[in-house]
Amino acid sequence: MHRFDDNIKKALRDILGADNVTFSGDELLCYSYDATGKEFLPAGAAFPATALEVSEVIKLANRFNFPVIPRGAGSGFTGGSTPVRGGLVLSTERMDKILSIDSENFIATVEPGVVNGDLQHEVIAKGLFYPPDPSSLKFCTIGGNIAECAGGPRALKYGVTKDYVLGLEVVLPTGEIIETGTATMKGVVGYDLTKLMVGSEGTLGIVTKTTLKLIALPEATRSLLAVFNSLKECADSVNKILLSGALPSTLELIDGVSIKAVRTYSDTALPEAGGLLLIEVDGDSESTGREAALIEKVCRAGGAVEVRSASDKRGQRELWGARRAISPSLKNLKPDKLNEDVVVPRSNISALIEGVGVIAEELGVVIASFGHAGDGNIHVNIMIDRTDPDEEARGLKAVEEVFALTLKLGGTISGEHGVGTAKVPYIRMELTEEVIALMKNIKKLFDPNGILNPGKIFN
Amino acid sequence: MHRFDDNIKKALRDILGADNVTFSGDELLCYSYDATGKEFLPAGAAFPATALEVSEVIKLANRFNFPVIPRGAGSGFTGGSTPVRGGLVLSTERMDKILSIDSENFIATVEPGVVNGDLQHEVIAKGLFYPPDPSSLKFCTIGGNIAECAGGPRALKYGVTKDYVLGLEVVLPTGEIIETGTATMKGVVGYDLTKLMVGSEGTLGIVTKTTLKLIALPEATRSLLAVFNSLKECADSVNKILLSGALPSTLELIDGVSIKAVRTYSDTALPEAGGLLLIEVDGDSESTGREAALIEKVCRAGGAVEVRSASDKRGQRELWGARRAISPSLKNLKPDKLNEDVVVPRSNISALIEGVGVIAEELGVVIASFGHAGDGNIHVNIMIDRTDPDEEARGLKAVEEVFALTLKLGGTISGEHGVGTAKVPYIRMELTEEVIALMKNIKKLFDPNGILNPGKIFN
Repeated sequence: MHRFDDNIKKALRDILGADNVTFSGDELLCYSYDATGKEFLPAGAAFPATALEVSEVIKLANRFNFPVIPRGAGSGFTGGSTPVRGGLVLSTERMDKILSIDSENFIATVEPGVVNGDLQHEVIAKGLFYPPDPSSLKFCTIGGNIAECAGGPRALKYGVTKDYVLGLEVVLPTGEIIETGTATMKGVVGYDLTKLMVGSEGTLGIVTKTTLKLIALPEATRSLLAVFNSLKECADSVNKILLSGALPSTLELIDGVSIKAVRTYSDTALPEAGGLLLIEVDGDSESTGREAALIEKVCRAGGAVEVRSASDKRGQRELWGARRAISPSLKNLKPDKLNEDVVVPRSNISALIEGVGVIAEELGVVIASFGHAGDGNIHVNIMIDRTDPDEEARGLKAVEEVFALTLKLGGTISGEHGVGTAKVPYIRMELTEEVIALMKNIKKLFDPNGILNPGKIFN
Repeated sequence: MHRFDDNIKKALRDILGADNVTFSGDELLCYSYDATGKEFLPAGAAFPATALEVSEVIKLANRFNFPVIPRGAGSGFTGGSTPVRGGLVLSTERMDKILSIDSENFIATVEPGVVNGDLQHEVIAKGLFYPPDPSSLKFCTIGGNIAECAGGPRALKYGVTKDYVLGLEVVLPTGEIIETGTATMKGVVGYDLTKLMVGSEGTLGIVTKTTLKLIALPEATRSLLAVFNSLKECADSVNKILLSGALPSTLELIDGVSIKAVRTYSDTALPEAGGLLLIEVDGDSESTGREAALIEKVCRAGGAVEVRSASDKRGQRELWGARRAISPSLKNLKPDKLNEDVVVPRSNISALIEGVGVIAEELGVVIASFGHAGDGNIHVNIMIDRTDPDEEARGLKAVEEVFALTLKLGGTISGEHGVGTAKVPYIRMELTEEVIALMKNIKKLFDPNGILNPGKIFN
């Protein structure tokens, strides 16, 4: 549905107030896209402030049968928040309050529109720590993080969003407001609806409040940058580090293509190399020193020609500058990227990296690989120019081949970005018909009229 | 269904072989009870060896409409594995193989009938660690642990069974064999069926294989026993320890009633005390030393009159002897116990302990509280003699009051034992009708004929 009739417009204004809903083309443009770069104009955008308002909007959508697309910051990489079938974008931007940070019980209660980085900042001020740290943390929201089960570099040691969501307030696709989970560290009364919601990409409900687990803030962190001439030696070192007994908080790999792009298109000081590992350890100051020394030893034994180290904020910012410079630099290689976040068992990281190189060469496309190698999660960026149909076709062929390789290596086609619309054509490579049928039946049970975020995951 | 007709018996023998199914009363007695002590005789017991056999049994059950009750070791505390409506107990005792322990990727693949302690033993031999450690680990099975989402003392630092289940092979209640999850540390393709299955108490499917996450084995452990004259000071010290920045692997509280029972009925050397904290820290040998010293300091500042410490196996066994002696000793107080495993936000542990004392006094029942105080999970044991109907009635009244108090304190009525049949009368104290309706609809979607473990969770 791409335009609302006057009845719907009036009903939405009645529920939300005229200021908190828009049907104007200019404003709607802002709610038409995400990080995939594809645009779909909705018929309207709504800005509810309470669960009750969300519930009333949902009930209206069921009555008039229009799609509702929940949206945080629209920073997703798979189209999860795009209104592919029109309808109403339901933005959580006004539900942006940190309701409480309980430093006695290490929990926070927040609304979905809270920006991840803002929460991080607030909890750190209380000596606490919320580990999930997607690269977009400066603007992405907790609601979006929950919808996609966002990860980030620190997932290696600390896990992903799912591991920190204790409970939810959710508006179901039929309008009921329910609470799931508990405010305690454990709870097994009935089915785990909380974890069913997390990662369901806004198709099973709209989160209107969440209780998050926090942990104690580590006393110290220390960063290392290990430089390898050979990408293979770099990739092989990932598992060697983990098998040494070290558990870094982050263990990021940056391949030669990414390094070259950073060196060419940014002023970040980065050595010429076949591959880099960017490593962070945290804990008390004594144990981080020991762990960093152990990791440096493993890297050197594995072929690192240089290992830089920083234990102060400034030095760490410099080292991490390289990682942050990758995405902007890659855009200079080609205007468009197909950003996939495959995961393999970590003993197969080297095989994946090598295989991706072969695919790039055979298909004549540029592929930059980097990311959370420590948990086997590599961001494979296939760089293309969409205005060149042949190159786009080769790019898409590369995506399929990367997925096939990943699955052959015992992996999964998405570690933290979700399926959205981007991976819909590929889920049958990973899931059987029986599993898809079961998931579709769950969707139908929750959302009999199919109003919530249609076209996602299963199409 | 309490007796099978000859058609069903023949069909089961055809599927499993005559040796792997029994209908004999004597043998069936062994499959009629769990740790609640209640008995329900099934019509038969089956011992399949493969997912395919499980699937065929399930299809038969759908055709002839008889209940199937999955069973591990029958060590549950809430009746989850009891055949309350007769039917066929499906024991996983022949599916007891550790299929692989992959020390490169820190994962294990096991069948459901593997005993938790056996798995622990095997992974430790490879320098790895599977943290979930229910008290019954010497005989409880991984399949049962998954069904109930078992915890244990180490859940404080390491989480519960759910946190270690990466993937499952499951026979659905309609007979399809599906695989859920991945063999990788991350994966977000479709809904999280894995975590929906864990803790579903055998009502949504029968696990026939699982891939478990392992972690590196900590280098060292150190145990402390802190002795308090005042139970309140003991309970208050729990959160003080956690707020100090320490994160022990276990932090168990033992109340005065439990201590007295141990001192009276076992030969464990235990000081007279109002409360004890039994604490374990793990990590490298230097950090465990520092962490233990910090905790000792906090305990002494909080009123501990004595703190014993042990870093060697023998000394640790001695300290832990007290914890292990509680359950057998309590049986001497009264023949029956109502064993509840409530959880509160840990800042309310003291209020819970105090409130339980008031309930015990007002109702004139003996209540022994001990357990995983570090995550707010206290085992409240209401000791009764069922042959005394008045005492039983007061015991049940105490259960209800303990639950009401727990919920008032922001908690949940079960942290790791599940609902089973024991807590069915109470779930409406915690869950709303909307949530129960949703859960029941999920159950119906998975199991339209209601053949799998009927009478559990919702009745």
